[in-house]
Amino acid sequence: MIELYTAATPNGHKISIALEEMQLPYLITTLDLTNNEQKSSHFLTINPNGKIPAIIDRGNHNISVFDSGAILIYLAEKSGKLLSQEPNERSQTLQWLMFQMSGIGPMMGQANVWYRYREDQYQPAIDRYQNEVRRLYAVMNNHLNGRDYLAQHYSIADIANWAWIRTHEWSGVEVDEFPHLQDWIERIAQRPACQRGINLPPINIHNGNAERFIQTARSILVN
Amino acid sequence: MIELYTAATPNGHKISIALEEMQLPYLITTLDLTNNEQKSSHFLTINPNGKIPAIIDRGNHNISVFDSGAILIYLAEKSGKLLSQEPNERSQTLQWLMFQMSGIGPMMGQANVWYRYREDQYQPAIDRYQNEVRRLYAVMNNHLNGRDYLAQHYSIADIANWAWIRTHEWSGVEVDEFPHLQDWIERIAQRPACQRGINLPPINIHNGNAERFIQTARSILVN
Repeated sequence: MIELYTAATPNGHKISIALEEMQLPYLITTLDLTNNEQKSSHFLTINPNGKIPAIIDRGNHNISVFDSGAILIYLAEKSGKLLSQEPNERSQTLQWLMFQMSGIGPMMGQANVWYRYREDQYQPAIDRYQNEVRRLYAVMNNHLNGRDYLAQHYSIADIANWAWIRTHEWSGVEVDEFPHLQDWIERIAQRPACQRGINLPPINIHNGNAERFIQTARSILVN
Repeated sequence: MIELYTAATPNGHKISIALEEMQLPYLITTLDLTNNEQKSSHFLTINPNGKIPAIIDRGNHNISVFDSGAILIYLAEKSGKLLSQEPNERSQTLQWLMFQMSGIGPMMGQANVWYRYREDQYQPAIDRYQNEVRRLYAVMNNHLNGRDYLAQHYSIADIANWAWIRTHEWSGVEVDEFPHLQDWIERIAQRPACQRGINLPPINIHNGNAERFIQTARSILVN
């Protein structure tokens, strides 16, 4: 059994989607980010970086794994799904996973901070990060011209990027000028496992209305 | 033969160090970032994201690999070095690699932008990123208490983090309060392959004096 420690954020949704796609049994524990539960001494033994998501694999010496990108690779190698063994397709998947980890995630995250959360509303910072997000979307849009998925087949790279990019309005960046990216967003959104994964834990903060991550810590059994 | 497209930056140094550690033969092509060679139409066929480093593996169907994190995994799996096959140590390495890709790299990068490069010198932005870098250093310092390396043995996670953290003064963040991190910096610095790797391509922009990435595009043969 996998224990998933998470909250309703893009990085959290990566893992709930992946677990749903891979059909691995798991137990969710939701952390209350507004109460800084992710910084508690107990949770720091699971993830020393004090962030969700993290997992404990009770079926593998109770090891803990932190950072959503490392969890995706761990689960893919455990399940044998969504990360090819063929070296070239495997590398394609890891390249676009890293594109998300080093680009889409941090830059949409900074856009959110400066555009959505901070009171100073410093326009040069808002512009910097929204422009970088737009540049990254353009790179993906070009790559997705003629392709259904980021690598040869649907993979953890699609999950990682999609969990963030579906929330583009939260970052204040439109995708109207990126038709291939739009098609891909819609293609992934149709997947039943994605539809389940983005509702776990069962609160959706990225609907453009909710302004805070408000969630009481609790555990629910899934599968 | 591996062709490495790079410049004298932390992300570039990750790959020259890794190639030196793994003793893989390679050819360096240095891109002139001041002339935006990384955005040229030719280079975009190698890395659609328009950034260094990237590689082409002439020994494997001429495939190209971009993003330093994906290149490190590719080279580790090709050489069988610096990324364990044992699942738990392997995951430890990938966790700390992702810590660098999603944290140390982007946050030191933003600290550099706001503290070092931008003319507006907006203090709340400088503080935000320098404080986050300090927080990440503290996480590493705690983890390195009693450990020589980030995972059980020296790995691509050490290379990725060290290539950035050695430039901490460029980001305006001291490491005096982090003794275990300091010891680790020095431990890695002693490695002959690291000493060779950080001088490839042969210009060091992170000495606290040089202000621009000034390098003429050229190719040199290594090994």
